[in-house]
Amino acid sequence: MKIANRKSQIANFSVPGFKAAGISCGVKKNGNKDLALIYSAVPAVAAGVFTKNKVKAAPVLLDMGRMKKGFCQAVIINSGNANACTGKKGMEDAARMVIAVEDALGIKKGLAMVSSTGVIGQNLQIDKIEKGIPKLVASLSSKGWNDAAHAIMTSDAFPKFAFEKCRIGGKEISVLGIAKGAGMICPDMATMLAFLATDAAIEQKTLQAMLKKAVDNSFNSITVDGDTSTNDTALILANGKAGNKQFTIHSSQFTLFCEMLERVCLQLAKMIVMDGEGATKLLEFNVIGAKTDSDAKKVAESVANSPLVKTAFFGEDANWGRIIAAIGRSGAYMKEEKVNIYFNGVPVVLKGLDAGREKDAAKTVKNENICIRIEMGLGKGKKTVWASDLSYKYVKINAAYRT
Amino acid sequence: MKIANRKSQIANFSVPGFKAAGISCGVKKNGNKDLALIYSAVPAVAAGVFTKNKVKAAPVLLDMGRMKKGFCQAVIINSGNANACTGKKGMEDAARMVIAVEDALGIKKGLAMVSSTGVIGQNLQIDKIEKGIPKLVASLSSKGWNDAAHAIMTSDAFPKFAFEKCRIGGKEISVLGIAKGAGMICPDMATMLAFLATDAAIEQKTLQAMLKKAVDNSFNSITVDGDTSTNDTALILANGKAGNKQFTIHSSQFTLFCEMLERVCLQLAKMIVMDGEGATKLLEFNVIGAKTDSDAKKVAESVANSPLVKTAFFGEDANWGRIIAAIGRSGAYMKEEKVNIYFNGVPVVLKGLDAGREKDAAKTVKNENICIRIEMGLGKGKKTVWASDLSYKYVKINAAYRT
Repeated sequence: MKIANRKSQIANFSVPGFKAAGISCGVKKNGNKDLALIYSAVPAVAAGVFTKNKVKAAPVLLDMGRMKKGFCQAVIINSGNANACTGKKGMEDAARMVIAVEDALGIKKGLAMVSSTGVIGQNLQIDKIEKGIPKLVASLSSKGWNDAAHAIMTSDAFPKFAFEKCRIGGKEISVLGIAKGAGMICPDMATMLAFLATDAAIEQKTLQAMLKKAVDNSFNSITVDGDTSTNDTALILANGKAGNKQFTIHSSQFTLFCEMLERVCLQLAKMIVMDGEGATKLLEFNVIGAKTDSDAKKVAESVANSPLVKTAFFGEDANWGRIIAAIGRSGAYMKEEKVNIYFNGVPVVLKGLDAGREKDAAKTVKNENICIRIEMGLGKGKKTVWASDLSYKYVKINAAYRT
Repeated sequence: MKIANRKSQIANFSVPGFKAAGISCGVKKNGNKDLALIYSAVPAVAAGVFTKNKVKAAPVLLDMGRMKKGFCQAVIINSGNANACTGKKGMEDAARMVIAVEDALGIKKGLAMVSSTGVIGQNLQIDKIEKGIPKLVASLSSKGWNDAAHAIMTSDAFPKFAFEKCRIGGKEISVLGIAKGAGMICPDMATMLAFLATDAAIEQKTLQAMLKKAVDNSFNSITVDGDTSTNDTALILANGKAGNKQFTIHSSQFTLFCEMLERVCLQLAKMIVMDGEGATKLLEFNVIGAKTDSDAKKVAESVANSPLVKTAFFGEDANWGRIIAAIGRSGAYMKEEKVNIYFNGVPVVLKGLDAGREKDAAKTVKNENICIRIEMGLGKGKKTVWASDLSYKYVKINAAYRT
């Protein structure tokens, strides 16, 4: 999909007390940036959400261990190699990365984390990465987010960046995020990574709960092809530089901050969908009236993951039968005769039957953005997910990548 | 995929006491055959397995009701319209079909069943079907299976037919099957249908158990795109004309007949996979050593349904990382360091790590038939599933069908 050049925007934003950098160290053969660093002037409260895939890459395992402390001052990220399915050597390499960056920055041991993304099953070019770290640290700048956003890209067609600033509890508070991901083209260019930085002061457990909720409603509500990666990671660092009184759970400040964090995450998540390989449409599946929220989730995911539904939208075919069949096999409780379906407000199914609006429906599916509203007519359960369509180009990219 | 012309084979086989027919009644606009009939000279013991999709087409609901009697003498099948999502009118139309066929054949009320396959959400052209029934009945012949196999086709590139004859308990016993299906291109050309006829004498509950097992190991072990239809149906009629002593459960005759039935179903199922839209490869995923059979099933289905795995095989890319990632997200218990993966006997992963046989693996994935063996190294759980690859043509067919 066509995306405006966001470079100038990225260059304009920063968060007090944070610096970022992105350089090329030679892991990517084409010379593109492949090593990024995020650094906080002081140890920041940290929270993380990691892949549920039972095959976890070495950097994920390392971070999950380090996260128990609840503090982090630097995150180093390489692209081009996932350091996954690499056994003991992989764990050693991940450890070498954090040690090298701690040494170069002169920060306390145990305060750096690491992410990797790229090919699965090959050993990391750890020597190249270690050699690159001095240059990486020297490049740190409060305006370095653009370079960092580029250095974490793999198959991404564009860098992903989002920023918000709000006055909460009398203080200006910023949230900045960068992300990578363009479908799960695992293992070669797998993985959704997101890194968030805020100057808010937040207690660790509260931050973890906030991040979990924001990730569920954004990155965990998008689907490009139903696969999940060995390396998926979302990290947030909160360095307290805004000088606010620590947010406590369920306060009004807490709610405002949660919403801001969620909006930033959702912006990034939608960019990942729009960058889905070969995507030509942004599809929003809005399920309401399911018996439970859990049922709504089943329906939304079954429909949004169906290759038949996705190819139909690519073909601009208002093919509601594929949607109702996907609802029926979702496992959710349903009464066929209660289901209504709308495409951008045009009814296509009413009470389980053809709404007779084929012509209007055919017109609206030509839009780039299509909101598919599914009313189950049963209860209060709801869930929204976003997905791309499935195009020739998806198959082409995924079949031909390594050849 | 290239399939030999099976017409002559089909024409040669029949089952004592059964006749079949297939004609065109005008439901399909292109004039192709669209109405089939299977008839037993005497009321046959019947068993059926129906779609688990909560959205069930009218003929499925009608058959599920009639199946309670355990007897059937005729099955009428139309293609071109699924009679699904058609409400009360759909139920009335399905009832009219069975009544018309019972009248025309002069058989007892309640002994006919019906299946439909085709477009969802449009009313059946019941008048055309009723008008066609006299000609259909007049066409009945013991050699009519070829016409019937053609008349149930929708997007199928070729008719699907399988036959076996064995001596069991001193009697010659035949099993004949026809099927349709080529991926679940729901709703336009959805649905897997299979109709089996045997002259064995079998008690109804035993027949139902046999069919369920055979379907689980064949039609329920193939995946073209992970979708299931509103109309999926497998029916078997056993008319007892072979004159055998009724099979009892767990007898040696029972086992021999079960194996024969399973082989016939598996032949039909593999033809459906090979006819998967745009399929260029027949993939066999053979999972062994999982903790439980249920875990093995999760692994096999997660891998075989992954669009990334399927596109990789289309691209002839020996991309084992996509397979190990799909195992990891399957929900099955796993130990990464115990997993071995082989492509046609070539090890690609040993103990969770790259086996270093990239060159041999790259060579073997150029075959049309690829056996992917996944050893979990944990227990005795096993499961085999068959799948097609995912090609450009799949997207093309499914995006462009109604336009």
